[in-house]
Amino acid sequence: MTILDILRNYTIDKNSPVPVYYQIQNIIYELIKNKKIKRGDKIPTEEELCNLFGVSRMTIRQALQNLVNMDILEREAGKGTFVSENKIIIDISNLKSFSEDMTKRGFKVSNKVLDKNVIKADKYLAEVFSIPEGEEIFYIKRLRFLDDTPAAIESLHILLKKCPNIINTDLANNSLFSILENEYKLKIDFSEQVIEPILSNEEESEFLNIKIGTPLLKMVGRTYLKSGEIIEYVIGIYRGDRYKLRLYPKRLK
Amino acid sequence: MTILDILRNYTIDKNSPVPVYYQIQNIIYELIKNKKIKRGDKIPTEEELCNLFGVSRMTIRQALQNLVNMDILEREAGKGTFVSENKIIIDISNLKSFSEDMTKRGFKVSNKVLDKNVIKADKYLAEVFSIPEGEEIFYIKRLRFLDDTPAAIESLHILLKKCPNIINTDLANNSLFSILENEYKLKIDFSEQVIEPILSNEEESEFLNIKIGTPLLKMVGRTYLKSGEIIEYVIGIYRGDRYKLRLYPKRLK
Repeated sequence: MTILDILRNYTIDKNSPVPVYYQIQNIIYELIKNKKIKRGDKIPTEEELCNLFGVSRMTIRQALQNLVNMDILEREAGKGTFVSENKIIIDISNLKSFSEDMTKRGFKVSNKVLDKNVIKADKYLAEVFSIPEGEEIFYIKRLRFLDDTPAAIESLHILLKKCPNIINTDLANNSLFSILENEYKLKIDFSEQVIEPILSNEEESEFLNIKIGTPLLKMVGRTYLKSGEIIEYVIGIYRGDRYKLRLYPKRLK
Repeated sequence: MTILDILRNYTIDKNSPVPVYYQIQNIIYELIKNKKIKRGDKIPTEEELCNLFGVSRMTIRQALQNLVNMDILEREAGKGTFVSENKIIIDISNLKSFSEDMTKRGFKVSNKVLDKNVIKADKYLAEVFSIPEGEEIFYIKRLRFLDDTPAAIESLHILLKKCPNIINTDLANNSLFSILENEYKLKIDFSEQVIEPILSNEEESEFLNIKIGTPLLKMVGRTYLKSGEIIEYVIGIYRGDRYKLRLYPKRLK
């Protein structure tokens, strides 16, 4: 059965409030996710898809372009559009949260809170934040999902005095950065990120639903405010079998 | 035996053309490298070292600062200076070659050429460089050493027409970027870097002298000239057990 044949089983609803390009995008995405269309498979041409769904070329283009932006599809010059063999790329060239980056690209990000507490800074955290020992730090550990698949484990440490009510904020469904910037009017400047490859241990493997010894990306970040203070210290453990990182360093001369 | 006792066995030569701070720096570095001083060990105070070697505080400070810059030592506020437990950090916040970065920090970088050839661009390379198939690409595979220890395997692909004589250049002892910029007056603009964690295979393990299945950082780079052309396509495999990456992404608003 060709992919065109598979797609024939699906119809779109032109009267739905859901945009038609989005319906088509979702049909293709679901088929890829459920492995009915496989990595490396060639997607039908724009013309074939226009005819199949009875929609304009513009509509098909938008559906395919969104899937290309999500790294789900990739175009090969002169050959067509294929289901990407690639891991999903996380852009680290500027400071975005995982949820901002992925939501913009059409993925659904959700979180499960694993642990949550107000703690007193010990010697180590006092040094990380350049604060006296004993100052209050809000600690929260989240399991992060991309389209309902476990993607990362994130341990956040936040300087509580800068956002005292964050304890009561729903961090399962909200981006931390948007809360800090919009609710607390904090000016986030930059982050120091340190990246290293590690092998998953038992706990990480269980949470992320992978074999022990799977390569992971450990990303440790210290987020600075414009004032020079460190607002956040975060340890992120990302599935290395599903994600890779991209950046665009400039040559300084 | 304390570290001070170990250091007592070494003397410096104040009449040598080698600066005294560098002699002291080297004594400490060699002792760490040969595991006579261990990770986490506390280094004697500046005062103790001044007395031991009979030199000024400035001299001791410079020796220690250089070792801190190399990530060999680390300072802990209020506690002293310790032999770093850390992996060596590769700065990826702007586009530097590994040899530029490491040489500046006092390490010795050397290379062993494993393979070297002029090849014709196949379909894949033609697409990577946006050139017609069949155009000439200079290919060179190097094993890179940091202070005589294998650090990385690097496969370079260079657009030959931009630097036709590079075939005859000694790339075992020279930085590629300095050759492109100084000899060929090429203006390097930026690079697209994609980073992923992988596990070492048999060949990589043999070259890098590590166990099979050791976590590695695979870094794929495309280096762009100001003209928009891609001059270099490089695949670097770095030891993840010895290196980590650091960058400072800015928050865009």
